[in-house]
Amino acid sequence: MTTDDMHSDRDACITLAHGAGGRQTAALIARVFARHFQNPDFTADDAAILPVGSFAAGRAAFTTDGFIVSPWQFPGGNIGKLSICGTVNDLACMGAVPRYLSCAFQIEEGFPLQDLEAIAAAMAKTAKTAGVRIVAGDTKVAGRGQVDKVFITTTGIGECMEGAHPSGSRAEAGDAIIVTGDIGRHGAAILVARRDFAIDAAITSDCAPLAAAVKAMFDAIPDRAAIHTIRDATRGGVGTVLHEIAAESQVGIELNTSAIPVAPEVRGVCGLLGLEPLYLACEGRLIIFAPQAIAPTLVEVLRTLPDSRQAAVIGRVTPDFSGRVVLNTEIGTKTLLPEPSGELLPRIC
Amino acid sequence: MTTDDMHSDRDACITLAHGAGGRQTAALIARVFARHFQNPDFTADDAAILPVGSFAAGRAAFTTDGFIVSPWQFPGGNIGKLSICGTVNDLACMGAVPRYLSCAFQIEEGFPLQDLEAIAAAMAKTAKTAGVRIVAGDTKVAGRGQVDKVFITTTGIGECMEGAHPSGSRAEAGDAIIVTGDIGRHGAAILVARRDFAIDAAITSDCAPLAAAVKAMFDAIPDRAAIHTIRDATRGGVGTVLHEIAAESQVGIELNTSAIPVAPEVRGVCGLLGLEPLYLACEGRLIIFAPQAIAPTLVEVLRTLPDSRQAAVIGRVTPDFSGRVVLNTEIGTKTLLPEPSGELLPRIC
Repeated sequence: MTTDDMHSDRDACITLAHGAGGRQTAALIARVFARHFQNPDFTADDAAILPVGSFAAGRAAFTTDGFIVSPWQFPGGNIGKLSICGTVNDLACMGAVPRYLSCAFQIEEGFPLQDLEAIAAAMAKTAKTAGVRIVAGDTKVAGRGQVDKVFITTTGIGECMEGAHPSGSRAEAGDAIIVTGDIGRHGAAILVARRDFAIDAAITSDCAPLAAAVKAMFDAIPDRAAIHTIRDATRGGVGTVLHEIAAESQVGIELNTSAIPVAPEVRGVCGLLGLEPLYLACEGRLIIFAPQAIAPTLVEVLRTLPDSRQAAVIGRVTPDFSGRVVLNTEIGTKTLLPEPSGELLPRIC
Repeated sequence: MTTDDMHSDRDACITLAHGAGGRQTAALIARVFARHFQNPDFTADDAAILPVGSFAAGRAAFTTDGFIVSPWQFPGGNIGKLSICGTVNDLACMGAVPRYLSCAFQIEEGFPLQDLEAIAAAMAKTAKTAGVRIVAGDTKVAGRGQVDKVFITTTGIGECMEGAHPSGSRAEAGDAIIVTGDIGRHGAAILVARRDFAIDAAITSDCAPLAAAVKAMFDAIPDRAAIHTIRDATRGGVGTVLHEIAAESQVGIELNTSAIPVAPEVRGVCGLLGLEPLYLACEGRLIIFAPQAIAPTLVEVLRTLPDSRQAAVIGRVTPDFSGRVVLNTEIGTKTLLPEPSGELLPRIC
């Protein structure tokens, strides 16, 4: 490649022709996606063909998620990494091992090709970490002003683990509630990156794939059914997820405020803006409900893994307060965590 | 519901809160999506659980497609119908029976709720026709001007039919080339609906799910492997698909111009604007490659079904002209169909 080529290449942008389905689309797929995502199941045909007959439990988990985060890159990741983590974590929350992903791009005309490369590279790296293959995709281009930079929708197929069937409706009185790390970092990172509030704070998103953490938990206990509920605390944060589980399982939830891990820099931003960390989005944090008896084992296993080193028990399920979330405050009182409503921050994921 | 409620309801619009993942998102899902898409596998959990162990051939087809068509409704359909047809047809082209779909919405703040209802209703109706279940979804809302009205990404899982393995690389010299109906109607319908050219023409999109047509073909022949190639002629139209197959299979393609069905109104618009119908998008037309010996059977079967009544043999595969598409013109000459390039019309699907 000559210097001239490299120069023109560095300045290259997405055009409407890249989304027209013809020669330029094929060239874009070959150059960016096929190169980064290469694996034996990747397809240029209309659909990938997958050997699901080999799934031991005979069941697949299937989930989809659209990502429209703004800005598309932020400390700790970009929309590409996020789009893999979100879908991988949704599969893991169902007790499934993520196997295959598809990804659909909607790109604004004029988006720099090298930025798309950075996104694809982050997707490939995260998919590799998560042990999942990107096997099918689609690229559409909309004119300037018709889509804001880039949207990605990923859809995943996971192999259900035999005997594992966690669900939002299976939380039980007596369960311990575990969080896999400090909360609210993704929401706080996006908030700072957007610069609407002119806050300078070095906050990195928690964005991470947690399939390995989930598998490690199931492998550490004799009866997989004992893990009652796993949810990832994304939009709406830990508070929203806990309210949903309390409602679905018709149980009460008691949290020990002092046990909830929050990074000092996140606490700082929350203090400045009057925000509650429990409502800030995470993109690499799970909430797990399991009997008190096995909670120490689960926490111990989680703490051996890089993205869940700060795992902690933050509360318990009670037969009282059905459908509600109660905070045991640091001054020894009890207070209700209000139900979330409205939009704290749009385009968080 | 009182008259007042109905009135306020009719004026209701999508807000950022509908995409925040909290109470309003749940209400929107219950009201619009769960109601229209209801089926036993529909999930409110992180992922649907699917019994893929029952897939006889042990293989699943997996495909994704993003839809950004503008305008979102057009004669013959809307973006909802289109989003089901596109993905169902991609699965059918791989010799798979469509089973499960996911759908992800990216909606502009202020989009009318009753329009979203119309889209969901069209999706539900088309999914029912195609025999496929919508089992998982996601809703995101972007601010005004950050996405143009509504984008939908659908992802599908199909059950591969035993013995069927059509592919773009399996076309063979001696194959007949079949099209399932008149070409170019989707592209022409969008072009007219967009009113950039102030043309009045009553053109209806061909948008239709073709899973039943594909299954009927495979059921009508003793050896499923005899159907070498099936492709849906979407972006880029029949011409683009034929060029792709000629390249992938390293064969020549000869078309009989007079045999290609084109509706008079499509021919009229093409005449006015100097367009070639072979490059206009279809959303309900397949191209099938199979040996001359079974072509009459396939055409006969296709003609019994409502969306392929005009099925016809339009050409054949030759050992000559490898990688090229040759037209036998109506005046008895041969001419090369040029390779498509660039963007005829953005946001066609």
